[in-house]
Amino acid sequence: MSTAGKPIRCRAAVGRAPGEPLVMEEIMVAPPMPREVRIRVICTSLCHTDLSIWKLKDPPGMFPRIFGHEAIGVVESVGEDVDEVTEGDTVIPIFVSECGECEDCRSKKSNLCSKLPFRVSPWMPRYDSSRFTDLNGEVIYHFMNVSSFSEYTVVDVANVAKIDPLVPPNRACLLSCAVGTGVGAAWKIANVKEGSTVAIFGLGSVGLAVAEGARLCGATRIIGVDVNPDKKEIGKKFGVTDFVNPGNCGDKPASQLINEMTGGGADYCFECIGVAPLVKEAYACCRNGWGKTVVIGVARPGSELGVNFQDVLDGGGKSIMGCVYGGIKAKSDIPILLKRYLDKELQLDEFVTHEIQFDEINKAFDLLIEGQCLRCVIWMNN
Amino acid sequence: MSTAGKPIRCRAAVGRAPGEPLVMEEIMVAPPMPREVRIRVICTSLCHTDLSIWKLKDPPGMFPRIFGHEAIGVVESVGEDVDEVTEGDTVIPIFVSECGECEDCRSKKSNLCSKLPFRVSPWMPRYDSSRFTDLNGEVIYHFMNVSSFSEYTVVDVANVAKIDPLVPPNRACLLSCAVGTGVGAAWKIANVKEGSTVAIFGLGSVGLAVAEGARLCGATRIIGVDVNPDKKEIGKKFGVTDFVNPGNCGDKPASQLINEMTGGGADYCFECIGVAPLVKEAYACCRNGWGKTVVIGVARPGSELGVNFQDVLDGGGKSIMGCVYGGIKAKSDIPILLKRYLDKELQLDEFVTHEIQFDEINKAFDLLIEGQCLRCVIWMNN
Ligand SMILES: [Zn+2]
Ligand SMILES: [Zn+2]
Ligand SMILES: [Zn+2]
Ligand SMILES: [Zn+2]
Repeated sequence: MSTAGKPIRCRAAVGRAPGEPLVMEEIMVAPPMPREVRIRVICTSLCHTDLSIWKLKDPPGMFPRIFGHEAIGVVESVGEDVDEVTEGDTVIPIFVSECGECEDCRSKKSNLCSKLPFRVSPWMPRYDSSRFTDLNGEVIYHFMNVSSFSEYTVVDVANVAKIDPLVPPNRACLLSCAVGTGVGAAWKIANVKEGSTVAIFGLGSVGLAVAEGARLCGATRIIGVDVNPDKKEIGKKFGVTDFVNPGNCGDKPASQLINEMTGGGADYCFECIGVAPLVKEAYACCRNGWGKTVVIGVARPGSELGVNFQDVLDGGGKSIMGCVYGGIKAKSDIPILLKRYLDKELQLDEFVTHEIQFDEINKAFDLLIEGQCLRCVIWMNN
Repeated sequence: MSTAGKPIRCRAAVGRAPGEPLVMEEIMVAPPMPREVRIRVICTSLCHTDLSIWKLKDPPGMFPRIFGHEAIGVVESVGEDVDEVTEGDTVIPIFVSECGECEDCRSKKSNLCSKLPFRVSPWMPRYDSSRFTDLNGEVIYHFMNVSSFSEYTVVDVANVAKIDPLVPPNRACLLSCAVGTGVGAAWKIANVKEGSTVAIFGLGSVGLAVAEGARLCGATRIIGVDVNPDKKEIGKKFGVTDFVNPGNCGDKPASQLINEMTGGGADYCFECIGVAPLVKEAYACCRNGWGKTVVIGVARPGSELGVNFQDVLDGGGKSIMGCVYGGIKAKSDIPILLKRYLDKELQLDEFVTHEIQFDEINKAFDLLIEGQCLRCVIWMNN
């Protein structure tokens, strides 16, 4: 019997209070409104952004809330005016919207939908309302347009990419945030050229995904920078050819060492941590004249970029840029990346260090906090 | 009788002390060393960089010195191993070197010669020595590889561009610094596309040259921003289509007004003053996703860029970059620009607001300090 048009009762891991373990409860998921899609989640993974907002007492921290924004699922039903996907389609929900109509969505140069701009909102993007209630009828907030720590969720049609159902779900789901961001930063934002040299500051999931993306684009030298010596061996699996431990350079800053190693700086530098002094370091070993420094890490609110004015002038055409979701336009770019995974060009397997069941979701939080994992995939098995 | 190989005695305007009027004296100009060229200067013009270093008591301020770095001249003689130019050639001396051999000079993407990198040095770039002495035999320092406030000067062959002698000298000389920088910033660094929108902060000679360069590249809307209301009419002569006076926007910052005027920001923004808050303003009205903010103005030493970290992330592929001499590679790009001048595409005439004789050179300083002129051309008539 079809569930379309009716509320669905299912299990969700609800964040009830900042920093406290999620509570597994039964909730009600309303049917999708026009231009919305209800999805049965297959698996999801935990990202640092879940962690950082989950810890916040004040907005954008809001409770009760269903976290989670890296996932894959199957369309259960669609609201009115949805032609793009239909019941049974395999989809990846994405926190960045792609309305397809605005100037940005129509341009190949931007993935920043200006009709449904991204913000960490407690509501659905198109209507500023929630589709979740608890069994007492109280509203539960959404998170990053996805809220995948639930057996069922509702997302806007602007926030789904239809994908090939043949891709293993515990690989495909990675692309919906961190890994997509890193690969995209190299591919879409920096547009890494064949034979070039890359330096990556911070070898977490995003930084390793930058390495993977740079390798895919044909970079021949990929320098990983991390204070954790274990990252040397881990980096090799993702194409990192040289490792620099800033705690191990003597008196030299890592940037100076990299300038010496490369004879004037890397063609592309990526900052994946989100601290101003590291942006300065990345910029300082980025090739004058043509280098690109891409900032990916999220900094503390109010933080300035930390780059010297004169250094920017002296850098000539060397540029600094940011990115949201690595510049990826989900509906068109995700299928390309998944095809490259199936063709064994893009490597995703090594990102998954842990797999657990939905019931154990709080363990994923512990693993990420302890720095023990790259990506922990959580299976819903519903 | 040829003067080649012999010292030349001629007149020069010598800076003897910081901030004090130049002294017209006779000096000796030694013959060019290998890879150097001795030039009879036809005319020269005064740039703000002359002014700012002339005022400095401490290095890079050094005295006695021959200032001047916007000029045109005729080759009087060449040193050993010079094939590029010969006696009688019309040349523009340029402060940025182009050795032709290093990785930067061989690349189309950089104008920052790494063999003879630019610095405000008191010496010739290749030998760290001077070709100027006064009649007491005391060394006089060079300035910015050009030192054009002299009837004769010596420059490295890496610092001359051979040009068409048909171009009027009081136009051609403009390209050797400020005007070349502005036009180049639009053309070579930003690579302004047809039909695009441009915003320029600061409508001095450099800013107006950016407008001229943007117009030449096919920009359809050119917004000039200046606190001097006179710049509205002046800007029109250089293709400025819209004028914003930040002192006249009510409570709104100029960036907000420009975001409203353009529906989300200009495709290219140029900062031509050199202050961090203005970089922030320029960046704030530069189109997210694909905009380019080009920093041209020289800031106080130690100044940070003044851009918010989160704004860079939110800007996506929007980039910030600097430039040295507008990214122009003198030997190849200057002849292109001068041809476009002769073809009446590039406009240079309106930049010359004053013309004086070499004897009156201190008047040029007064005019520039008073803000009364764009470019004051100084004729040597030697
Ligand atoms: Zn859109
Ligand atoms: Zn994430
Ligand atoms: Zn060179
Ligand atoms: Zn100048």
